[in-house]
Amino acid sequence: MIGGGQGAFIGAIHRIATRIDDHYELVAGAFSSNPEKAKASGEELGLSPDRVYGSYKELIEKESQLPENVRVQVISIVTPNHVHFEPTKLALESGFHVVLDKPMTFSLEEAKELKKIVESTGKLFCLTHTYTGYPMVKEARQIIASGKIGAVRKVYVEYPQGWLSTFLEGEDNKQASWRTDPGKSGIAGAMGDIGTHAFNLSEYVTGLQVTKLNADINIVVEGRKLDDDGAVLLKYNNGASGVLMATQIAAGDENNIKIRVYGEKGGIEWQQDIANTLLIKYLDKPTEIWRTGGGYTSGYVTTNMRAPAGHPEGYLEAFANLYKNFALTVKAQLEGAAATPEMLDFPGVEDGVRGMAFVENVIASGKSDQKWTDFTI
Amino acid sequence: MIGGGQGAFIGAIHRIATRIDDHYELVAGAFSSNPEKAKASGEELGLSPDRVYGSYKELIEKESQLPENVRVQVISIVTPNHVHFEPTKLALESGFHVVLDKPMTFSLEEAKELKKIVESTGKLFCLTHTYTGYPMVKEARQIIASGKIGAVRKVYVEYPQGWLSTFLEGEDNKQASWRTDPGKSGIAGAMGDIGTHAFNLSEYVTGLQVTKLNADINIVVEGRKLDDDGAVLLKYNNGASGVLMATQIAAGDENNIKIRVYGEKGGIEWQQDIANTLLIKYLDKPTEIWRTGGGYTSGYVTTNMRAPAGHPEGYLEAFANLYKNFALTVKAQLEGAAATPEMLDFPGVEDGVRGMAFVENVIASGKSDQKWTDFTI
Amino acid sequence: MIGGGQGAFIGAIHRIATRIDDHYELVAGAFSSNPEKAKASGEELGLSPDRVYGSYKELIEKESQLPENVRVQVISIVTPNHVHFEPTKLALESGFHVVLDKPMTFSLEEAKELKKIVESTGKLFCLTHTYTGYPMVKEARQIIASGKIGAVRKVYVEYPQGWLSTFLEGEDNKQASWRTDPGKSGIAGAMGDIGTHAFNLSEYVTGLQVTKLNADINIVVEGRKLDDDGAVLLKYNNGASGVLMATQIAAGDENNIKIRVYGEKGGIEWQQDIANTLLIKYLDKPTEIWRTGGGYTSGYVTTNMRAPAGHPEGYLEAFANLYKNFALTVKAQLEGAAATPEMLDFPGVEDGVRGMAFVENVIASGKSDQKWTDFTI
Amino acid sequence: MIGGGQGAFIGAIHRIATRIDDHYELVAGAFSSNPEKAKASGEELGLSPDRVYGSYKELIEKESQLPENVRVQVISIVTPNHVHFEPTKLALESGFHVVLDKPMTFSLEEAKELKKIVESTGKLFCLTHTYTGYPMVKEARQIIASGKIGAVRKVYVEYPQGWLSTFLEGEDNKQASWRTDPGKSGIAGAMGDIGTHAFNLSEYVTGLQVTKLNADINIVVEGRKLDDDGAVLLKYNNGASGVLMATQIAAGDENNIKIRVYGEKGGIEWQQDIANTLLIKYLDKPTEIWRTGGGYTSGYVTTNMRAPAGHPEGYLEAFANLYKNFALTVKAQLEGAAATPEMLDFPGVEDGVRGMAFVENVIASGKSDQKWTDFTI
Repeated sequence: MIGGGQGAFIGAIHRIATRIDDHYELVAGAFSSNPEKAKASGEELGLSPDRVYGSYKELIEKESQLPENVRVQVISIVTPNHVHFEPTKLALESGFHVVLDKPMTFSLEEAKELKKIVESTGKLFCLTHTYTGYPMVKEARQIIASGKIGAVRKVYVEYPQGWLSTFLEGEDNKQASWRTDPGKSGIAGAMGDIGTHAFNLSEYVTGLQVTKLNADINIVVEGRKLDDDGAVLLKYNNGASGVLMATQIAAGDENNIKIRVYGEKGGIEWQQDIANTLLIKYLDKPTEIWRTGGGYTSGYVTTNMRAPAGHPEGYLEAFANLYKNFALTVKAQLEGAAATPEMLDFPGVEDGVRGMAFVENVIASGKSDQKWTDFTI
Repeated sequence: MIGGGQGAFIGAIHRIATRIDDHYELVAGAFSSNPEKAKASGEELGLSPDRVYGSYKELIEKESQLPENVRVQVISIVTPNHVHFEPTKLALESGFHVVLDKPMTFSLEEAKELKKIVESTGKLFCLTHTYTGYPMVKEARQIIASGKIGAVRKVYVEYPQGWLSTFLEGEDNKQASWRTDPGKSGIAGAMGDIGTHAFNLSEYVTGLQVTKLNADINIVVEGRKLDDDGAVLLKYNNGASGVLMATQIAAGDENNIKIRVYGEKGGIEWQQDIANTLLIKYLDKPTEIWRTGGGYTSGYVTTNMRAPAGHPEGYLEAFANLYKNFALTVKAQLEGAAATPEMLDFPGVEDGVRGMAFVENVIASGKSDQKWTDFTI
Repeated sequence: MIGGGQGAFIGAIHRIATRIDDHYELVAGAFSSNPEKAKASGEELGLSPDRVYGSYKELIEKESQLPENVRVQVISIVTPNHVHFEPTKLALESGFHVVLDKPMTFSLEEAKELKKIVESTGKLFCLTHTYTGYPMVKEARQIIASGKIGAVRKVYVEYPQGWLSTFLEGEDNKQASWRTDPGKSGIAGAMGDIGTHAFNLSEYVTGLQVTKLNADINIVVEGRKLDDDGAVLLKYNNGASGVLMATQIAAGDENNIKIRVYGEKGGIEWQQDIANTLLIKYLDKPTEIWRTGGGYTSGYVTTNMRAPAGHPEGYLEAFANLYKNFALTVKAQLEGAAATPEMLDFPGVEDGVRGMAFVENVIASGKSDQKWTDFTI
Repeated sequence: MIGGGQGAFIGAIHRIATRIDDHYELVAGAFSSNPEKAKASGEELGLSPDRVYGSYKELIEKESQLPENVRVQVISIVTPNHVHFEPTKLALESGFHVVLDKPMTFSLEEAKELKKIVESTGKLFCLTHTYTGYPMVKEARQIIASGKIGAVRKVYVEYPQGWLSTFLEGEDNKQASWRTDPGKSGIAGAMGDIGTHAFNLSEYVTGLQVTKLNADINIVVEGRKLDDDGAVLLKYNNGASGVLMATQIAAGDENNIKIRVYGEKGGIEWQQDIANTLLIKYLDKPTEIWRTGGGYTSGYVTTNMRAPAGHPEGYLEAFANLYKNFALTVKAQLEGAAATPEMLDFPGVEDGVRGMAFVENVIASGKSDQKWTDFTI
């Protein structure tokens, strides 16, 4: 693991996610750019001291020199955005598979470069857009792909948070500080942090691609340097339209990312707060409450849950599903076997490129007087 | 009553609304432009045949000639949009108070003219934006006005319907036919029919006014002549931004108009499906579930409900609240008494002018390549 | 109307219920045993002074003497329980149809007597168990009767209120006072007031009859004279078992009466708080959300609603359905026509007898050391 | 780990629970009484073959002989009920701490014996009543203990499942088979499997103890040997009353264990389907929605969650909380430190004894003609 030392949030989440299904063992880490913190973090995590490194470069270099059956197979990179590209590039080029926290890079330029590197090295790559790890999100995608609700016409996707309603970055809050710092987050705040999740979710569930956008991007809290609120009108490649709302100033809201998709014959609705439920709507029949554990769901649900129906699984399990499917794909590759479609259903470098394109296009649109901006990569 | 004959939908709703609180008696009507239907409707409603008229003109003329203590005091006008202005004008100028179904007129021009007439005649006028009749919508307005959630920063208002997902106007459906007919509805379909409700709700609840908008207006169902879907980015006069979604092609959805408003210190959330509930959110305290009948609510709730806490009241009661408050205001005027703020809390001609301005501005924005359109009247 | 003068609660509700569908006109009343209050109430309601009577006897006697086309056709009786039997008996025997507030009488003895009177006079009789007026409650009954969920095995019915959590009868609260007074309510408090509703709902929805019960009846609030809390284990005549919970000391709860029924193949769930929704559950399919206004519902829904799908109707409309169906049945009788099953679907004297038997049996069981008490009439 | 081999359900859940917080490493196991299955299970789990044992006796004996810093510290026992007592006794007496799946034993006699053994050996013991691991269940207990809702008056606890609605044990279903087999489950079916959870939850949350019960216990599905349905009226040691419902024939229901407690001044409500939410009700204030991650919660919430507010945690995390707190308590003991109250908040041997007493008392009451049965141990 690179990043995720003491005080970090997402690193700990990644570690839990790797442990849930027992496909990973954490054996080496470069947890911080601060060597003392790196060491302390490694110790706390029970690693052998000789595999706690002072920098990502050292980690990759030293691990490469270890015998194949000893060295790490997969490297998780959980650093802030500005330290995504370089370690990922080095890891891939040194022969490691990589799991990388989103958004993929600091800029679209880097993202496109990374895509080439993934393709040329042939290593496996996973980008942790967590929400596509939820079983009922996967099921929503399958249902829409099956034609059950007809051609998609309208998408509403929203990610309302309230935690940045005040000038938290002025209060020594680590999470708030780097997320609102252009030097660490890039050109976008809320749009990069959560807008990319909403964007990714909408493309994943519908199987469509955004072709145009029209954005209202705001800095609401005085003194903030990056956007903390935005709403975007979307056009998709089949002619459908959409609305994406992402905000960090929805005072009192938590994290209830939600998507509604309407087709010619019906609709689907999913939200994180009731993550084990998927609503399927029809023009002329009662709405159905699909549930994880229901005997009628596809393999995309059954392979991505652990407890029987009615025992709720949540965010950590969704995260674990990404890691699990990635592990099974790595394993299949090692064994020369074919990965199943369910295994391969994790976000990859293409999602990362489109996510960074979203960031650049949406910020450009926000600054433009032109109504519709083409979604360019 | 003018309009609302056999086969009409909203006329029957208006009549129920007038009966609930026993402030009105229906004594005269011009229920249809078709004289036979008009007569039959009057008979069915048990009216004296000599007060069932063949046209609105006849109704107004004849009623004017009746003794003051016999003739109607208030005229309800529930015709399609293109027959709003003329009867309302004539009724007001003939000395009657008027309750008019929304949207106020066929065009903004007519709306502005009507405003002048209301002002010059001094008659009372109510426009039936039903949703502002819900007690918890009124409470939301009071709470925001009180400063409890701080200055408003963000508004999400949505009105997703699915009933026009197919080409229903091709199937001899009266409701679908006039609503999708530019000759009867005016320049807007969904935006006029339900977009105006959402717009009105957002201005009512926040106490703010829209100053700019940026609209994506669509005709989704093939062959349709007016918009059946749209999303609008909004700017309000205090700098807040908003998103308005109104669609009639959300297959499987019913009528769940919903509003969320976020301020510096908290937020409110209301939706028609759970109309007796209002959520109040805070930055640092648990969300509260405010309920009609709760001992902590203001007079705007207690004067607009009839049954004890926990006995749900719905759409018809919200509608009845408009009529009841209008009646109490008329009564107060007759008695030379001052109407209370609660009585005066019904939508009027100013709401109507702004609603028609919304229709014209939003359709103009939908057709424009310019990103932001000023909200002009 | 008999009872329901100034300060009363349920009388006003009955009057709204009669007005909603315009099948009734209130023309006469004996609103209070206090003559001044009776007069003032009549005046407030706009009745002709000569038809405002000082007692129910006077009302029935004088109205009987009026010409058939002038005198009242239906008498609503909305007095406290101890003044149910006598006026109802007199009204029926004087040739009037009667609508009576529940519970039917002060004692089971009276109830059985009343049943004989209804049968011998041949007059129509409705007992206002409001909850069976909800369209989705009616639909639940139809669905179970159709065999869709198989033979019923288990029933949970609950009616949790919190308004009597304190000694309210000590505070000059009219509603609390008579309900907790054995001289006015009879031998039961909560069990008579709301337990009978829950009991009636369970028999109505399942089509079954209780044959045995095992009750825990409590007086929780110090100083109270009648039960304010109870739970009852039930056996039905097909072998199914049930649990009935009715309490008035569920602090913070309102009025969310709820029923769940499980059969061999599925279940149904309904609760007043989301009254327009009925959940249908299956062993092997997704739960379905049935809604008033859904195109798939039976005539028991469509004839008992007024506004299109998604415009919530509530308690007052459920109440109005009882009155409306009763009126249509009266009308059919007058016209010598057959009432439809939908019209006839209102609670009657048999429900009243069983309700009073419930009261007597449940209180007896509460006092008994014997586990199961036979349900005797 | 003892038990939990291939095909088992709860063993896998226990293993996930141990991994989530990284306080445990699985190093030895006796996974099955079938030696081949035991071996295969150990291999699948990546254990060293010399620590995969053929029986629990072998495991305990051999592990005891290993050096202290090598041998297991805690033994998880996840066998069916009839193989709980012996291995637990042996493990404790051999010096190991034990985590045991519920219900604690096959009989109350065994339970009381086990209690003595725990006390005499001084080893730590945890019984996995999962639901008390949910942060908001813990918070409910704290809130009630604090007096916020006043003295408890009424408890409703329910655990409706539908999975045994058919004769599943006739279809080679391992989970159904042992649970409905008196030789493996003991004298109770549903009451032992889920009734004990409901019972434990009610005593845990209220801090009260049941003193009397009055049970209706049923075998609903033909051919079944143990109860699959029951409802129990309860009396608690402060005079409060309660209703416990546990059923496995609620067709279409999953696993939504739910508790409502009402006191003099308010109430609490929690259910597993929305596990991160706790409702707090008041007599005179709006109901509050308390959430994991809310800044206003106690340390019992903050120490038992992992992701920020709004990222749902579920059943596996609740399970993990038991293991985590047990580990921290073990660790504190090893370090000679005092465990915090939060660490010590896991179910223990006393819960187990009371749970088995519940099983015996409730089955006895079900068979008795006597109304109230004293809760005896």
